[in-house]
Amino acid sequence: MSDTNYQSGMIDILNKGLGAMDAPLAPTETAGLGWNLLAEDLSLPAAVLYEDRIAHNLAWMQQFVREYGAKLAPHGKTTMAPKLFRRQLDGGAWGITLATAQQTQAAYAHGVRRVLMANQLVGKRNMTIVADLLKDSDFEFFCLVDSAAAVAHLGRFFRARRQTVQVLIELGVTGGRTGVRDAGQEDEVLAALDAWRDAVSLAGIEVYEGVLGTEADIRAFLQRAVATTRALVAGGRIARQPAILSGAGSAWYDVVAEEFSHKDMGAPVDVVLRPGCYLTHDVGIYKAAQAQIQTRNPIAKQMRSQLLPALQLWAYVQSIPEPERAIIALGKRDAAFDAGMPAPARQFRPGVSNAPAPTPPHWEVTGMMDQHAYLRIEAGDDIAVGDMIAFDISHPCLTFDKWRHIPVLDDKFNVIDIVQTFF
Amino acid sequence: MSDTNYQSGMIDILNKGLGAMDAPLAPTETAGLGWNLLAEDLSLPAAVLYEDRIAHNLAWMQQFVREYGAKLAPHGKTTMAPKLFRRQLDGGAWGITLATAQQTQAAYAHGVRRVLMANQLVGKRNMTIVADLLKDSDFEFFCLVDSAAAVAHLGRFFRARRQTVQVLIELGVTGGRTGVRDAGQEDEVLAALDAWRDAVSLAGIEVYEGVLGTEADIRAFLQRAVATTRALVAGGRIARQPAILSGAGSAWYDVVAEEFSHKDMGAPVDVVLRPGCYLTHDVGIYKAAQAQIQTRNPIAKQMRSQLLPALQLWAYVQSIPEPERAIIALGKRDAAFDAGMPAPARQFRPGVSNAPAPTPPHWEVTGMMDQHAYLRIEAGDDIAVGDMIAFDISHPCLTFDKWRHIPVLDDKFNVIDIVQTFF
Repeated sequence: MSDTNYQSGMIDILNKGLGAMDAPLAPTETAGLGWNLLAEDLSLPAAVLYEDRIAHNLAWMQQFVREYGAKLAPHGKTTMAPKLFRRQLDGGAWGITLATAQQTQAAYAHGVRRVLMANQLVGKRNMTIVADLLKDSDFEFFCLVDSAAAVAHLGRFFRARRQTVQVLIELGVTGGRTGVRDAGQEDEVLAALDAWRDAVSLAGIEVYEGVLGTEADIRAFLQRAVATTRALVAGGRIARQPAILSGAGSAWYDVVAEEFSHKDMGAPVDVVLRPGCYLTHDVGIYKAAQAQIQTRNPIAKQMRSQLLPALQLWAYVQSIPEPERAIIALGKRDAAFDAGMPAPARQFRPGVSNAPAPTPPHWEVTGMMDQHAYLRIEAGDDIAVGDMIAFDISHPCLTFDKWRHIPVLDDKFNVIDIVQTFF
Repeated sequence: MSDTNYQSGMIDILNKGLGAMDAPLAPTETAGLGWNLLAEDLSLPAAVLYEDRIAHNLAWMQQFVREYGAKLAPHGKTTMAPKLFRRQLDGGAWGITLATAQQTQAAYAHGVRRVLMANQLVGKRNMTIVADLLKDSDFEFFCLVDSAAAVAHLGRFFRARRQTVQVLIELGVTGGRTGVRDAGQEDEVLAALDAWRDAVSLAGIEVYEGVLGTEADIRAFLQRAVATTRALVAGGRIARQPAILSGAGSAWYDVVAEEFSHKDMGAPVDVVLRPGCYLTHDVGIYKAAQAQIQTRNPIAKQMRSQLLPALQLWAYVQSIPEPERAIIALGKRDAAFDAGMPAPARQFRPGVSNAPAPTPPHWEVTGMMDQHAYLRIEAGDDIAVGDMIAFDISHPCLTFDKWRHIPVLDDKFNVIDIVQTFF
């Protein structure tokens, strides 16, 4: 597959959250649609991105990572939106982190040429996808191994194709997710890497610290990763120069930056940080995590601004059947619900309001069904069937995957682009 | 929009769960792909449908509804898969139930010509979508109203366009979701219908009994709906002949059939039942609901067979980091998790197994992250990195919406079609 014959990825006319279109649009044809959210040009519910906030968050994280001399490979699984990958790369990102072969393929098809697949690569078709992309010598790719079996799985496949795949050894913790638990498992992995060295090439070390719950445990785990990297460098076990040392989800990236950066590891090391949720941020789990970062991290304290929530869901009030209950046309199919319910933020009454106004603080989503949300209100509140309500979200990943197309709005609520997702 | 200029809905090459394709495929071009699940031709994780089980479930429900002399309008929001809508209609369904204007548009574009939108229709763009479809006199459409405000909202829009929209009055219960709570609210709706009768035409009564928890409460609610229908028919308030009386989600459709069918309502009435989850069934909430139906309903007892789970998720074992823990490359983005975790069902070791074998009964998914599942195993179990595991699911709706393409398999695991979803 090359870029030149890439014909997939049209913006379809039959999906939710869009305005009127006569025919499918190419992703580049989104200028001049003339849609405005407040003019009710979009079919709600709709997910929208705010351009100014996206631009702000992009710059914020790039500056943060730069202060530590680290490299940024934002986790693209969060959005799976190649137009956002492009902005992250143009803003200075070193590469894109992804979770699967299919995600890697979608990113490559949109021009991404360095992928850290922060996951094991398993299965014939999945390995074939990656092997085909690796025919492009401009494409750099890494995946994880955490067992001799995983190394052999890759080794058999890539040796038969006379190709080599770069891997990072994933370190893990007991009771955690994937990852090498102890020195014994690590030795087995290293022995397997010796046996398959023509097909599987060690490029560095990877951790996902987010499986741990306390800063102390996380710092200890990260220090283990530094020590392991230092030992492997000293032993000449890492083929790539510089070696890679990578960590950091969206909640502890500051601690990872502190523990990994500017450490003497015996040779130059590329420290690669992988937060993904910073781009849209939220008002839930990542707002809480970021508040901790602002408290404990000296660089974040110095920066003059905060990450801003850049993704909202707009939906209509469809019924107010009881004085303290409104029903919103927004459901589990439209919003993440695993880390808190969507939070009402703004209200707009078409034909009446001049601009969206903040919603009363006592409004609260108390539950969702597939296509409906229950909004707790108080008797006498100014709310009517047909009102548009904007909801902030908690957990961007599980919101993005519910939308194939996400309009991007300017500060007048004009649609200036459409971001597509590939799940 | 007409069928003839419909060019959207290509099967893309960049989404998950598919095999190798050089270019996007038309939905009609899925024969002869030559993919076989067990040959690892698909990129896992993948959602698959089993053809024989789908055919069985289709026939089962159609027979059940026919025994009651009722009409079937399966809830299409479950699958949002037009190829499945077509099979439901070809099998005898009267129409398709949907939840939103966008879903209605997607169904219409694929040939559906009768839609019961079991929801309020709100917002300019959403009403425009429906109004444009109603220019086709062969298209019959209904939506719900449960307040005078909702009637006026529709009335203003459709009167300005000199069009008429058919509506059903939704009855509801205190503490429930949408729907008219009492006689006072009903009188207000009827007065509004009088005021807007040129633009909003009453066609019948609708309930969703699934917001109630006990059979006794549900029967009482259904009897209220019958009484309301009888009174409105007697009063000459229902414009459509026959009037429509509709209810039934996937858990209580037998009780609705019993309460609504063969009742004297003073004139012929179309009783329309709307289960959606029967098509794929599951091994969770709907298996439990169906077990109750098999116990209490005389027709279901007489039928020689049961609904069968027809949708599974296949994924790889990616890591076995501890003796009692395997990590599966399947996550919250791939499977519903709001009504129970996916349940391991079958295991297949590529290159070794002859056929999938049942998984040990003690295997259990104990949690999921975005892209990973934790599988509890026991030390010494025969499980390896690269094994393919099939998972049964609970809650079809929130599984379908995670997949854009779902291969359909014959009994040899050959892919014989690809079902697309439109969310």
